[in-house]
Amino acid sequence: MTPSIAYLGLGSMGMSMAARLIEASYPLTVWNRSAGKAAPLTGKGAREAATPEDAVKNADFVFSMVADDRALEDVVSGDHGMLSAMKPGAVHVSMSTILPATAQRLAAAHAERDVGYIAAPVFGRPEAAAAGMLWICLSGKAADKERLLPIIKPLCQQHYDFGEEPQAANVIKLSGNFMIASAIEAMSEAFVFGEKNGIDQGRLADFFGSTIFNCPIYKNYGRIIAEQRFDPPGFRLALGRKDIQLVAETARSSNVPMPFLATLQNRYTARVAKGGAESDWTSIALDVASDAGLVR
Amino acid sequence: MTPSIAYLGLGSMGMSMAARLIEASYPLTVWNRSAGKAAPLTGKGAREAATPEDAVKNADFVFSMVADDRALEDVVSGDHGMLSAMKPGAVHVSMSTILPATAQRLAAAHAERDVGYIAAPVFGRPEAAAAGMLWICLSGKAADKERLLPIIKPLCQQHYDFGEEPQAANVIKLSGNFMIASAIEAMSEAFVFGEKNGIDQGRLADFFGSTIFNCPIYKNYGRIIAEQRFDPPGFRLALGRKDIQLVAETARSSNVPMPFLATLQNRYTARVAKGGAESDWTSIALDVASDAGLVR
Amino acid sequence: MTPSIAYLGLGSMGMSMAARLIEASYPLTVWNRSAGKAAPLTGKGAREAATPEDAVKNADFVFSMVADDRALEDVVSGDHGMLSAMKPGAVHVSMSTILPATAQRLAAAHAERDVGYIAAPVFGRPEAAAAGMLWICLSGKAADKERLLPIIKPLCQQHYDFGEEPQAANVIKLSGNFMIASAIEAMSEAFVFGEKNGIDQGRLADFFGSTIFNCPIYKNYGRIIAEQRFDPPGFRLALGRKDIQLVAETARSSNVPMPFLATLQNRYTARVAKGGAESDWTSIALDVASDAGLVR
Amino acid sequence: MTPSIAYLGLGSMGMSMAARLIEASYPLTVWNRSAGKAAPLTGKGAREAATPEDAVKNADFVFSMVADDRALEDVVSGDHGMLSAMKPGAVHVSMSTILPATAQRLAAAHAERDVGYIAAPVFGRPEAAAAGMLWICLSGKAADKERLLPIIKPLCQQHYDFGEEPQAANVIKLSGNFMIASAIEAMSEAFVFGEKNGIDQGRLADFFGSTIFNCPIYKNYGRIIAEQRFDPPGFRLALGRKDIQLVAETARSSNVPMPFLATLQNRYTARVAKGGAESDWTSIALDVASDAGLVR
Repeated sequence: MTPSIAYLGLGSMGMSMAARLIEASYPLTVWNRSAGKAAPLTGKGAREAATPEDAVKNADFVFSMVADDRALEDVVSGDHGMLSAMKPGAVHVSMSTILPATAQRLAAAHAERDVGYIAAPVFGRPEAAAAGMLWICLSGKAADKERLLPIIKPLCQQHYDFGEEPQAANVIKLSGNFMIASAIEAMSEAFVFGEKNGIDQGRLADFFGSTIFNCPIYKNYGRIIAEQRFDPPGFRLALGRKDIQLVAETARSSNVPMPFLATLQNRYTARVAKGGAESDWTSIALDVASDAGLVR
Repeated sequence: MTPSIAYLGLGSMGMSMAARLIEASYPLTVWNRSAGKAAPLTGKGAREAATPEDAVKNADFVFSMVADDRALEDVVSGDHGMLSAMKPGAVHVSMSTILPATAQRLAAAHAERDVGYIAAPVFGRPEAAAAGMLWICLSGKAADKERLLPIIKPLCQQHYDFGEEPQAANVIKLSGNFMIASAIEAMSEAFVFGEKNGIDQGRLADFFGSTIFNCPIYKNYGRIIAEQRFDPPGFRLALGRKDIQLVAETARSSNVPMPFLATLQNRYTARVAKGGAESDWTSIALDVASDAGLVR
Repeated sequence: MTPSIAYLGLGSMGMSMAARLIEASYPLTVWNRSAGKAAPLTGKGAREAATPEDAVKNADFVFSMVADDRALEDVVSGDHGMLSAMKPGAVHVSMSTILPATAQRLAAAHAERDVGYIAAPVFGRPEAAAAGMLWICLSGKAADKERLLPIIKPLCQQHYDFGEEPQAANVIKLSGNFMIASAIEAMSEAFVFGEKNGIDQGRLADFFGSTIFNCPIYKNYGRIIAEQRFDPPGFRLALGRKDIQLVAETARSSNVPMPFLATLQNRYTARVAKGGAESDWTSIALDVASDAGLVR
Repeated sequence: MTPSIAYLGLGSMGMSMAARLIEASYPLTVWNRSAGKAAPLTGKGAREAATPEDAVKNADFVFSMVADDRALEDVVSGDHGMLSAMKPGAVHVSMSTILPATAQRLAAAHAERDVGYIAAPVFGRPEAAAAGMLWICLSGKAADKERLLPIIKPLCQQHYDFGEEPQAANVIKLSGNFMIASAIEAMSEAFVFGEKNGIDQGRLADFFGSTIFNCPIYKNYGRIIAEQRFDPPGFRLALGRKDIQLVAETARSSNVPMPFLATLQNRYTARVAKGGAESDWTSIALDVASDAGLVR
């Protein structure tokens, strides 16, 4: 029998994934904290629920993709939260970028109610989500993951299994976002270095993006930095700062000194102090440039 | 008529390139500061010269690939240096990683003697050199580059032209080595972060090297870091430190603050202080790990 | 009429201050979370209370000096907490090093119950506390501070008034601890630089401590660093790390990039990762030395 | 017999010291690279020389205080340099802030000509020089220093002997300037932290300068930072950057990682990039403030 699915959180990523689940003919219920997002989905047959509780009560799988740890805890166990309404045996597929410690706590709370919890953060920009070309990282109980695999097929080009510890996939996600942020800073410094020594930033982005760094992160972000396409944002700086803060908290609690991370934290703080929270997170390049006396 | 070529500097990179030029049937004279390197090449028909001066006197193109700025200046205009012996109209193809300022000075000195100077630093490890799969960056006079293009065909998968300013390609090379060093540090931090939070370093290297960072730098160096293959070195830390120092000097003279670069400089200094100058430059990962209390 | 005083928290600082209040003939009730600390004080006439609630019920002034924000919140409003038991019009003199945000929240909670709240963090080591030679920073309602002044006379060589905003004195305290930690790092780097260039660390400490840096912080900490007197600790590294973390949280919420602070955070994290949490906070000098290849 | 003295380099420090030597009745010859500085001294009886060579030929002691290593090497052994003109047995008292390596090289060159060389860098601002209240650090041959002591009495409140290694006093000077620059950065960060959390910068400077940091560096520089008195400069940022660069070169050659130093280097680079080379070196506080979104 076709499993019933709920999708909670209709940001640009969630919206695309929900749409693909409908196209794959799953009965879908959706919910979003702020109203008015669901129309494109209800038009295709999705049901819109008024609360997480309402959304999940008949679901076999519940996907969630929300802004941060607090938003997720609210969706799970706040007023009209989902957890107490879920069917025994159902599975929560938790895609938000959150602290590993939060994942551990949530997994335990789900287990107490006989509900599965799978951490399933993704890599990929909204276009990749729309094309079903995400990379999905999974951690959680083996049996739950096995049941999930056919469901996520329309969403990703590949999934990666990081074992049964509930927080493992979140550790991967945080590691990855740190590495992406580091690549952005490294390019920003290198490109300003190049510019002040006579090389056009676009030339640098093209050269490196087609040779030793010919991978999505350098190709895409390299162009954005060189062309200063910081607005509208692909990923808001305020969100990037939040993610880097999650890395910092996890690094602190596990006692890992990370000097690159420290530089990044100061970069985001400066951008926010100067009013740049709503631009793309690559806009730290503006301060790399202004520190070098370049006027943008 | 087939041009005559000299190759000065038979390190692992130079050796492979010289061998490919012989295979391509160019008459080749070689020279190396320390003796005993040329045998594999003379066995294939190369002539070995006793001095740079002797090596270049009949050459139409002189390639040089030596350890640093000082070594190059010595080869060019030290005792029995090459410059005063070169034929008018011949071209020096300068492949060493040197300061842009040195390139400018050398180009001017060559021009005074009616000798061409092309900066031609390369990207790629020794295996890529042996396979003729390097990426070569060029800058210098257009006419000289045009004459050079057929000659470098057996050496590279692709060449990139950065215009007529003699130092431009050196700026690219320094930018690139800085970005590589930054990627190594970022991976080292991320992998230790992962390890202390329960993820095997090899899993991290594999995952990122096949998804968002599926490019040579992350794939190759990621494996080396995860497997701690620091000896024998692919690229000695002492040389990496030298290159990063060239970036720092150029950044200082062009007034570019680079916080990631500053972190890297301290990393290499610490490694050298602890006796690690002769290991691979990825071995800074040892200090990232020991700073986090991990015993290797 | 002589006011009645309670002192909550009998660490080395609190113990010395409580003793001086007894000597100054104030009726004193004391409390400490772990038992067995009060004996030297009860021997001189202090009453020991079993809970904060019990300790404060007749007090006109309640001093508190506990480990961190959480401990203070517990003392104030946890089980058998003090706040609900205080007399209207009494004043809480809050000496712990805490977040300014916590001070604001506590001040509001006190005001609701008609209880005064004065932030009163101190500078000075335990010996200064024992000698009544602390520097006390005050912020809070003017009328409350005026009543407090005669009481703190036996405790300090001088007090400084930072106005009526409840958190102001905490901002001063955090600024100061950051500056002290920075001085420790600066000396550690300078002394290792000196040592590796032929100068004895003790000579450096003496010279600077008697010339351009002839102030308590450099004189005292300079000797400790040069003589490597890290155990037993004067101020535990774990506590220093906590304080620096409070600075970091406040800097983040007020959007202040602080690169020196970032370096310090990594230093403390590394020390804790290597098992050094219980030594003096100057023991970061050990890592400055080992990073430079010096074996201690 | 009263020794004859030459003073080379009449910047604000040299001028004040030369004046005090005249007042102490020493026969004095002076020289400065750019003309028109000597008038106040010749008016009091000094002889002005046209070249270093001319200035030193009858001198028993030659003081020098010039801008940097290159300027000093020029004065010593450039065209009409001093060294070849000095009397055997005379002593060069070298007060400039230079590399320890330069001091070693110069000391050897002096010894070959039977001329003494004493490194004698000073601490103190121009007002201290005018009042004879400098602190002078000495290193060099014991016999030379013994002869020098009566001569420097009018210049300093105290001298400190760092032994016979010629470069030792220069190591002290570099250590000290690094520590001063670190204190400036630490205050700048702390004061902006304070300001953004409601505390006036002047209050912070006063409080710390009269309590835990009641020493010249914090008192003087604290006021300058709080009052933003960056022009005219007391010590030009370009010179501060040069000194910090000397520390960096010495740290690199002796393999000492110094993260605070790295932050400082980037600060000065940014200031110069933004056109601030001629302001006081405390003006890095402007960037600390602007990074935090404060408009000056």
